[in-house]
Amino acid sequence: MAEYSAPVKDMRFVLDNIAGLDDLSKLDGFAHVEGDVVDAILEEASKFAGNVLSPLNKPGDLTGSHVKDGVVTTPPGWKEAYQGFVEGGWNGISAPEEYDGGGLPQAVTMATLEMWNAANLSFALCPLLTQGAIESIRAHGTKEQQDKYLKKLVSGEWAATMNLTESQAGSDVGALRSKAEPAADGSWRISGQKIFITYGDHEMSENIIHLVLARTPGAPAGTRGISLFIVPKYLVNDNGTLGARNDLKCVSLEEKIGIHASPTAVMSYGDNGNCVGYLLGEENKGMACMFTMMNSARLGVGVQGLAVAERAYQQAVEYARDRRQGQAPGMPKGEMTPIIHHADVRRMLMTMRANIEAMRCLIYLNGACLDRAHHGPDAETREIAMGMAELLTPLSKAWCTDLGVEIASTAVQVHGGMGFVEETGVGQYYRDARILPIYEGTNGIQALDLVGRKLGLRGGEPVKQMFADMQETVKGLAAAGDEMAAMSLQLNLAVSALKDATDWLYSNAPNDPHAAPAGATPYLRMFATTVGGHLLAKSALKAKAMLEGGASDTDFLKAKIVTARFFMGQILPTATALLGPVTEGPETLFAIDEELLSA
Amino acid sequence: MAEYSAPVKDMRFVLDNIAGLDDLSKLDGFAHVEGDVVDAILEEASKFAGNVLSPLNKPGDLTGSHVKDGVVTTPPGWKEAYQGFVEGGWNGISAPEEYDGGGLPQAVTMATLEMWNAANLSFALCPLLTQGAIESIRAHGTKEQQDKYLKKLVSGEWAATMNLTESQAGSDVGALRSKAEPAADGSWRISGQKIFITYGDHEMSENIIHLVLARTPGAPAGTRGISLFIVPKYLVNDNGTLGARNDLKCVSLEEKIGIHASPTAVMSYGDNGNCVGYLLGEENKGMACMFTMMNSARLGVGVQGLAVAERAYQQAVEYARDRRQGQAPGMPKGEMTPIIHHADVRRMLMTMRANIEAMRCLIYLNGACLDRAHHGPDAETREIAMGMAELLTPLSKAWCTDLGVEIASTAVQVHGGMGFVEETGVGQYYRDARILPIYEGTNGIQALDLVGRKLGLRGGEPVKQMFADMQETVKGLAAAGDEMAAMSLQLNLAVSALKDATDWLYSNAPNDPHAAPAGATPYLRMFATTVGGHLLAKSALKAKAMLEGGASDTDFLKAKIVTARFFMGQILPTATALLGPVTEGPETLFAIDEELLSA
Repeated sequence: MAEYSAPVKDMRFVLDNIAGLDDLSKLDGFAHVEGDVVDAILEEASKFAGNVLSPLNKPGDLTGSHVKDGVVTTPPGWKEAYQGFVEGGWNGISAPEEYDGGGLPQAVTMATLEMWNAANLSFALCPLLTQGAIESIRAHGTKEQQDKYLKKLVSGEWAATMNLTESQAGSDVGALRSKAEPAADGSWRISGQKIFITYGDHEMSENIIHLVLARTPGAPAGTRGISLFIVPKYLVNDNGTLGARNDLKCVSLEEKIGIHASPTAVMSYGDNGNCVGYLLGEENKGMACMFTMMNSARLGVGVQGLAVAERAYQQAVEYARDRRQGQAPGMPKGEMTPIIHHADVRRMLMTMRANIEAMRCLIYLNGACLDRAHHGPDAETREIAMGMAELLTPLSKAWCTDLGVEIASTAVQVHGGMGFVEETGVGQYYRDARILPIYEGTNGIQALDLVGRKLGLRGGEPVKQMFADMQETVKGLAAAGDEMAAMSLQLNLAVSALKDATDWLYSNAPNDPHAAPAGATPYLRMFATTVGGHLLAKSALKAKAMLEGGASDTDFLKAKIVTARFFMGQILPTATALLGPVTEGPETLFAIDEELLSA
Repeated sequence: MAEYSAPVKDMRFVLDNIAGLDDLSKLDGFAHVEGDVVDAILEEASKFAGNVLSPLNKPGDLTGSHVKDGVVTTPPGWKEAYQGFVEGGWNGISAPEEYDGGGLPQAVTMATLEMWNAANLSFALCPLLTQGAIESIRAHGTKEQQDKYLKKLVSGEWAATMNLTESQAGSDVGALRSKAEPAADGSWRISGQKIFITYGDHEMSENIIHLVLARTPGAPAGTRGISLFIVPKYLVNDNGTLGARNDLKCVSLEEKIGIHASPTAVMSYGDNGNCVGYLLGEENKGMACMFTMMNSARLGVGVQGLAVAERAYQQAVEYARDRRQGQAPGMPKGEMTPIIHHADVRRMLMTMRANIEAMRCLIYLNGACLDRAHHGPDAETREIAMGMAELLTPLSKAWCTDLGVEIASTAVQVHGGMGFVEETGVGQYYRDARILPIYEGTNGIQALDLVGRKLGLRGGEPVKQMFADMQETVKGLAAAGDEMAAMSLQLNLAVSALKDATDWLYSNAPNDPHAAPAGATPYLRMFATTVGGHLLAKSALKAKAMLEGGASDTDFLKAKIVTARFFMGQILPTATALLGPVTEGPETLFAIDEELLSA
């Protein structure tokens, strides 16, 4: 099993041609983001990912994290790797420079995030959570809170967690019961139990800043009565030094299917009535604060889907080149053929590859939209970009994580019997990937977000803009002729079907509250796959232009065109066919009484 | 987590209306198979499955099987359960009565097999392997061999294994290197190492009869030089008592993603040069002997896919009825709604259900075809039935096991975060199911078997007959009017596309050796899904006729119609759309050089 090797060339291609790196570097605050700087960053990150994080992945799975007397121990090497991560400045590369961050665009961060997660998903979860807290405190914290927490979180000396879920409150966050009582000094006393808290405790960082959702006395029911609190593991003195241990602890860790090295904690706050918290943002506005980090956290989980798929793909290609079985047509007689030359194995690999490249386009574009939303030259540009970022987010999260599971499963299949044996390591990706469609809003929730909120966002402008972009690509393909013209027809069919599905949702949602939810999941799949096809087609057009302009890397550029053609011919058609399922309506879903669904 | 509850009513419905139980009971040897006998069998089997096997499933996963000094220990309770299984007469219910078997049709055995595997997949593997050996010895053994081994294997007092795979010989069985040297007494001395031997050793039965593929001196290369040997763990004296321990041992067990309780052994034969084997069938005809058991073994694995899906479905329904989150449209205000009332959750459950019922139809029909192939009144009937059984086998194996994985994954998703926690038990199905698309011929191999062998079998007659059957259903639906007529259109589209795909394969396979292999996997999916739709539509037509005839169980029968409609509207369209991928041809598969597939 080889270590992870970051696909730096493809990452850079997507950054240049889909995310628009050149344009991003012209935005306010990104003047330092030149092409060779980005190259250097990707190169260094790929070394850290491949040499440090990747070798810890499988041992971490075998050892797991453990808790004893409320103290969590991460696997051997974990703490040292985290220290290296912090010292390398990787933790805060997209955080603002005023807090000693790297001030890099989100688009570029997508690439480094992909690397950490492909190398070691369990490890990469820790900084992912810290990132969410940084954004939340930046957006909603007082000046004093920002000064107290941000630099340490940006550097990674302190880590952070997000505490939403309680046993009765999962997708339905509004059902949470944890409490916050005001104290005389203006702080709060937190009490309650939270579950599924990723990196709820560990010894990798000096301190852990827990962001905890709770209800204040007399708060309204549901999501409108939730407030967000900063609850440090060690209280922080005004001079920035660490004070007393707060009244909170890790009660237990879950035994999970995968991500064994990532401690998933049950956290108890205020067992002794003395858990100190500080209100972040306004009282009863906790959900709004959570939404601040939601977009980027969901996008981050989408990256995890892409990342685990890439890792699984690399291992599958390696195995398929090495393993010999049978005799493929046209291969040398008298010896077994590497299975990569069997058409059905090649189909599996190409399916993985085409989906991965499409996901990478979607994710990096989504990151670039966030950059334009925050750094765009004027309010209108920023609003338009934010609309697009918000539209793409549920696609990035749900599609890329569903594909993460599917591709990890295919990688096991490529390995045959060896894939089912843990020794090979590919089984870990299959087990690890399974959490991704669940956490940070299940993929069902993402689909509801798409049909319920995003289609109607800003009067439907982002959707219209995406359709216009796709039509542009359809035209571009047609004008480019030859094999491109064939892709134009295929993409046009998909876009038309997606439009029909969208119109059906717009028409039927107002009349039947079940109509949109019933079609939401196939609609998201259809939408994301079509966007994926559109972005691969754009890549192919760019590659063609570069080839015609005499670019040197012809193999790579020709492969870009083939991959797009494969996607159009092999992957897009079933997505287009989801028009039927989306517009079938909810009747057959509910026609069998729930009691009759069990045997 | 509730124990498994066999869906006896649906099983009986499928036996009656799809497998044609009534007709089967008129065949030679099946006179004793009356409806109430079948009911009694299903009832008793469901008790054993639910009360004995099911409670051992999760503990077995946690404990696993272990090897020490060549002796394998299965989990606590395993041996007693096996004893109960043997005493209940379950092991040989489809074996001939002359060997004290139950002489039941394969179709009925599919139902009991489904129960054992749904209750406890790891446990059920042991008798599944014994079954293969029974068939092989029956078909190819000498009278003496049959007398010596069959009764004990039929009763289950002895178990059996199949030894094909070696580290360099997986899908490519012909590459195996194990040897057999003739001994003076007419027996053989076996030597070699075999891997992935299911239940390679255990103490549940008095003896284990290993069937081992090996090469005799001077045998031709490849599959034409392979012979099959009976290699007992304990040699059997002529009076039937057990003699000396044979020179074979379990070297190690694999650490696997799932089926932890099923010992997957590395077996070493002849370490001391004294491993005694007996030739089964003719020298160099070992592959033919293996093919004898292949059809039923592959069908058996297809049943496992169905079974794990059913188990996962039951648990998902139970969880969805119990778990409350959010507020679904039309449900009581002021309380959280059981998630089963959310459209997207219902979609997941209905997708599982519709696929499961379609799989059950396919599998039981496949079993009935085998019954007709062996018990049909004349040679022609038997040949036609065997052709259909052979056509359906790769569909049963590959489609049902791919769906087994997909449905287990969906069941995890229904559970949300709890699904990722091992405690819930649903993760075990996700892990266990992953072996099914791999063993007993990978699903890629099944697809190649379909396009490479089965399409051309008997001049394509079985395929033509299946198309004729499907057209009959299309007509029947049209004639039945109303909602049935809508299904007729949907099914007709699918059948037409499948015909087009088939014609494309017939036309292109002769010209390009990659053409059929390139399209094989989507073609199998398309074929099986269309057959599934056809069989559910037949079920719906039967249900409608029964309702019109005044049948009492109206809820069940109406649900049959709804399930068929759901399948047509939600599941069939994407299968129909595979026409594109099947007929796209191999060009894009191979256009990127293998060296460029890695980063």
